[in-house]
Amino acid sequence: MDIKTYMETLGRQARAASRAMAAAETSQKNQALLAIAAAIRRDASVLLEANREDVEAARAAGLDAALIDRLALTDKTVAGMAEGLEQIASLADPVGEMTDLKYRPSGIQVGKMRVPLGVIGIIYEARPNVTADAAGLCLKSGNAAILRGGSEAIRSNQAIAACVREGLAKAGLPAEAVQVVETTDRAAVGELITMKDYVDVIVPRGGKGLIERISAEARIPVIKHLHGNCHVYVDDRADADKALRIVENAKTQRYGTCNTTESLLVARPVAAAMLPGIGRMLAGKGVEMRACPEALAVLRGAGIEEGRLRAASEADWSEEYLAPIIAVKVVDGLDAAIEHINAYGSHHTDAIVTEDYTRARRFLREVDSASVMVNTSTRFADGFEYGLGAEIGISTDKIHARGPVGLEGLTSQKWVVLGDGHVRQ
Amino acid sequence: MDIKTYMETLGRQARAASRAMAAAETSQKNQALLAIAAAIRRDASVLLEANREDVEAARAAGLDAALIDRLALTDKTVAGMAEGLEQIASLADPVGEMTDLKYRPSGIQVGKMRVPLGVIGIIYEARPNVTADAAGLCLKSGNAAILRGGSEAIRSNQAIAACVREGLAKAGLPAEAVQVVETTDRAAVGELITMKDYVDVIVPRGGKGLIERISAEARIPVIKHLHGNCHVYVDDRADADKALRIVENAKTQRYGTCNTTESLLVARPVAAAMLPGIGRMLAGKGVEMRACPEALAVLRGAGIEEGRLRAASEADWSEEYLAPIIAVKVVDGLDAAIEHINAYGSHHTDAIVTEDYTRARRFLREVDSASVMVNTSTRFADGFEYGLGAEIGISTDKIHARGPVGLEGLTSQKWVVLGDGHVRQ
Repeated sequence: MDIKTYMETLGRQARAASRAMAAAETSQKNQALLAIAAAIRRDASVLLEANREDVEAARAAGLDAALIDRLALTDKTVAGMAEGLEQIASLADPVGEMTDLKYRPSGIQVGKMRVPLGVIGIIYEARPNVTADAAGLCLKSGNAAILRGGSEAIRSNQAIAACVREGLAKAGLPAEAVQVVETTDRAAVGELITMKDYVDVIVPRGGKGLIERISAEARIPVIKHLHGNCHVYVDDRADADKALRIVENAKTQRYGTCNTTESLLVARPVAAAMLPGIGRMLAGKGVEMRACPEALAVLRGAGIEEGRLRAASEADWSEEYLAPIIAVKVVDGLDAAIEHINAYGSHHTDAIVTEDYTRARRFLREVDSASVMVNTSTRFADGFEYGLGAEIGISTDKIHARGPVGLEGLTSQKWVVLGDGHVRQ
Repeated sequence: MDIKTYMETLGRQARAASRAMAAAETSQKNQALLAIAAAIRRDASVLLEANREDVEAARAAGLDAALIDRLALTDKTVAGMAEGLEQIASLADPVGEMTDLKYRPSGIQVGKMRVPLGVIGIIYEARPNVTADAAGLCLKSGNAAILRGGSEAIRSNQAIAACVREGLAKAGLPAEAVQVVETTDRAAVGELITMKDYVDVIVPRGGKGLIERISAEARIPVIKHLHGNCHVYVDDRADADKALRIVENAKTQRYGTCNTTESLLVARPVAAAMLPGIGRMLAGKGVEMRACPEALAVLRGAGIEEGRLRAASEADWSEEYLAPIIAVKVVDGLDAAIEHINAYGSHHTDAIVTEDYTRARRFLREVDSASVMVNTSTRFADGFEYGLGAEIGISTDKIHARGPVGLEGLTSQKWVVLGDGHVRQ
């Protein structure tokens, strides 16, 4: 079978399965999730063995250490997959929720019902745990899923897929509700992202390169997360302790996450008072500061070692470092901060530190990002922290879902109209 | 200036204006809407004169009567534009609405704020009233708009644009908040639908051809309405009077609208009892029935004149006639009806006529359409009937907005996080 025919077969099967999934009862979906989790726990050694083969092949192919690190499963990550599925089972079912049913002057009653999107295509890199996670989220939200993981993880993914199939069968749900693409041919991705009749939305998970490529080529809506150039703006009405604590957490708690702060803006009136303390804290943690001339002068004056300082270039304001590096800029005040963030940011997550009511209110309204924050760390931008219970990704798009995307982001709302023989005049 | 540079200039200006629009106060936006309406009323004769030139040019170019009919303005349609803007001014402002603010165990407070999408590109045919309407909806929802109407309406659109500019200026809003593309070069559309950095969403309004072309070529999300193959399913537990009344209204109230019913499904147990009456009503109104063999036999048996009857082909089940024609099929019952609608329908609007509680509930849940109805006419699928107050279009997409799209459909929700120095553990 050629790739096109193979993918169309998956698509047609997924479309058919999506009808059954949309009508499935909550208890059935939960039963499937728990059965998949149980199968994963029971078959942990099978999964680890398949994964070991994937890892060996990746090593033999000379793939880089970071990829192999993401690819490798351990007892702990396998248990984590099962726990994740159990957590998804415990979440409220978003499907079928009816809201806002109101009578209209015509006599009809109009409201909305939350419904699955249909068929979701998920494309990700060589991270086998995404297979379990994505399958669980799609299943609970009543969607059918076509999963296409990195080819290096093919054996691991197929082992996980076997557990998924078993769980679906136990709950009486169609086997095609979750399909793992079984070819490593890259043409499969090209088909998946253009099969408009069979796939309703694409969710790519992975590096910026993967996501840009998929967005450029997809003929289907994409829920995407491009990158995170998050800001903390320390206003001249900021509390100095909170500013220090928030910058520390936002920049240094973890360097490699998309909600890590990459740019620090400080209002001119407090630059001399607050930047030295913040700069010393950052330098002490080994963070390099790429600063505007004004910030650089203040930081130097505060005696921060030259090795931690560097003049910022224009490119630094747009950078997602994912490393112990931060861009630092002194700005006039709130207006300049908002303008800078909207111009250079990635519309992901941005925070203001201020005690000023009106400025906090303006920052919340005028910063055009998926998450806007007052006096908190950008690190909070996360589905679990927001109470979504799970997260399929973080969207930097404006359409459909912005920010952390949970079960609700995998659904839509249709209109429900109830009458009693009513006709339009 | 070449088209690319010209469109990028519009895009850059729109992006800048969108920041001011997002922060604009409700009263300012309403003031602008009312001032535009007043200018349109005052300059009615100017608009009609510009429109007369457009119509003459269209006639001279030999364009078809239907196009000229849509192009031509009258005193009444000009007054209608002004009234539409006044109505939009009276609607609640969706922007800035904060909902669901909840405290999380970490101590942060998390909720959502409704915000404009940013820059909306609207592409439509030679209907000058869309210029006023679209400008008003984008303005009220805090977005900047780039409007590209059919080239045949260029003089009318520029006359309306002058009124829009005057209204924006009076309210102190940026002139670039609503820009009308001033070239009739088709390349402008190609630029508009691919300027990712400057345009957030495209709303095409017009025929299926226009929308398919734009969807295929756009590199920006499109809120689109493709076509409406709406169904009425008469269940075997239907009330015969309601069935007759609903089919009559759904099919014959207006033939050319997207929410007009194009397919009638009748459950076998009541086909002999209910189809004859429905058939006679339809025949009496001059509607041609394209029927499956079983329905054809019943209709013939009821003495309906042969000239109104025709055997349905497979293509009829997918057709949007927009004419006094209806496809008629006898089905086994609810399951077959749902399957037929999901397979052949356009996911627009579908109704069941039944007195059966469980079947009504199943139809609502399992029919995968933007609007699902019980015991009402599909003609109700409309922004005004649903209480949206205005409508930019009807979406047959599943992502973002389904069904009638009002002001809310031109907005999105961002996350708002409030803290007091909170950091992530």
